[in-house]
Amino acid sequence: MRSFFRFRLGNSERKKFKRSVEHIIGEAPSNVGLYQLAFRHTSASKETAIKGFKESNERLEYLGDAVLGMVIAEFLFKKFPYKDEGFLTEIRSRIVNRETLNGIARKIGLENLIEYDGSRNRGIVPSRTSMYGDALEALVGAIYLDKGFRFTRRFILKELLGHYDLEALISNNANFKSRLIEWAQREGKKVEFIIISERGNNHFREFISQVTVNDEPFAQGSGYSKKKAEQSAAEKACEQLQMKPVSN
Amino acid sequence: MRSFFRFRLGNSERKKFKRSVEHIIGEAPSNVGLYQLAFRHTSASKETAIKGFKESNERLEYLGDAVLGMVIAEFLFKKFPYKDEGFLTEIRSRIVNRETLNGIARKIGLENLIEYDGSRNRGIVPSRTSMYGDALEALVGAIYLDKGFRFTRRFILKELLGHYDLEALISNNANFKSRLIEWAQREGKKVEFIIISERGNNHFREFISQVTVNDEPFAQGSGYSKKKAEQSAAEKACEQLQMKPVSN
Repeated sequence: MRSFFRFRLGNSERKKFKRSVEHIIGEAPSNVGLYQLAFRHTSASKETAIKGFKESNERLEYLGDAVLGMVIAEFLFKKFPYKDEGFLTEIRSRIVNRETLNGIARKIGLENLIEYDGSRNRGIVPSRTSMYGDALEALVGAIYLDKGFRFTRRFILKELLGHYDLEALISNNANFKSRLIEWAQREGKKVEFIIISERGNNHFREFISQVTVNDEPFAQGSGYSKKKAEQSAAEKACEQLQMKPVSN
Repeated sequence: MRSFFRFRLGNSERKKFKRSVEHIIGEAPSNVGLYQLAFRHTSASKETAIKGFKESNERLEYLGDAVLGMVIAEFLFKKFPYKDEGFLTEIRSRIVNRETLNGIARKIGLENLIEYDGSRNRGIVPSRTSMYGDALEALVGAIYLDKGFRFTRRFILKELLGHYDLEALISNNANFKSRLIEWAQREGKKVEFIIISERGNNHFREFISQVTVNDEPFAQGSGYSKKKAEQSAAEKACEQLQMKPVSN
């Protein structure tokens, strides 16, 4: 894989880039090419020797997303020993939501490092793009490959989580059912929850809940109780409606 | 947290349990209580000293799911250096899908360790439940807390991935769009893809695709190309239709 990373940068540019990365991650990078790749948006992706395979930060983003998700999962698991998995899942999704990550990426200074089509001639980046958040995840992937798990975990806990106001994040309404109902009232729609299936026996049940909007099936969810099934269905409905996840 | 783990087991039972765990994970467990919790299904959850907080394996499942997801992400990232993130994401979701995990859980012998309402009096577990897969994820969470990252990663790569036929998993159809179209043909429905929004400028675009079923909006997805947006919308539609993820 190593042969892939093409150092287009001149020597002094490369030193500058290396210093910038060092400033962000707190240690000199060993494999600079990984970080260059992390900041290469798909619009600036490069053909490789493998036909049809263009290289951009998307693979690193996939890896970084998984590493970030796991480190945050552990952090929340330990921080909230008496909260159930529904709470932990919801708070994690708020922490890693695209808009929040975009904001953090700017705060830690990724803006000027990202290479995209137009970045060399001051192309304007549309403000709604998720480019910065994507690059932040890719950076986490690069750090993981370059420095290993412990280093990456410390980076996430120290350098990224420090930018969050956890309390504010938590106090936002995590109740998808009530968010959905509020939405319906605002939009003049009728929302209903129906349990459409139950599996199991006396000891052991799983429910499937369906949300209908104006009597049309809209989303489904499942859970070990009716309430959980409804929350899960409501969550999916909120996703589909692209209700903005709450950011701090 | 430690005070939570109640050792209801007698001394010889406890030794037996410990040996079973050792047999599965390949090393004697240090914190046996963690593993007992991992195998405690929500139907056998216990009230704790904290009012309203019942303890079962659901929190460990949340943690284990994240650890498993990350280890598999890294494994695929390294195994397939020339595959894009869409492929990696899809194959990972096949590896960690609930039914497949259920099967692996039985293969490694979790069946007899799980405590659920009825397990003491031979209650019958409905075959469609995800209890085994959930317990397997919880076990991964317990191993992580008990033994750390490296050990857990090795366990996943050696003990779990060994049960997969990766080639068979990959050769299944990952193309959500064509799966959705096949479904529509089977069911006599009309499926269409519409690009309902484009953001960005010349350098930089993001598309939103909507799937309609019989002219009704059904699911949405976004991506940096029309094709990716459509795949993403089709994937969400397949999820909503609860199309079975492919297992080996």
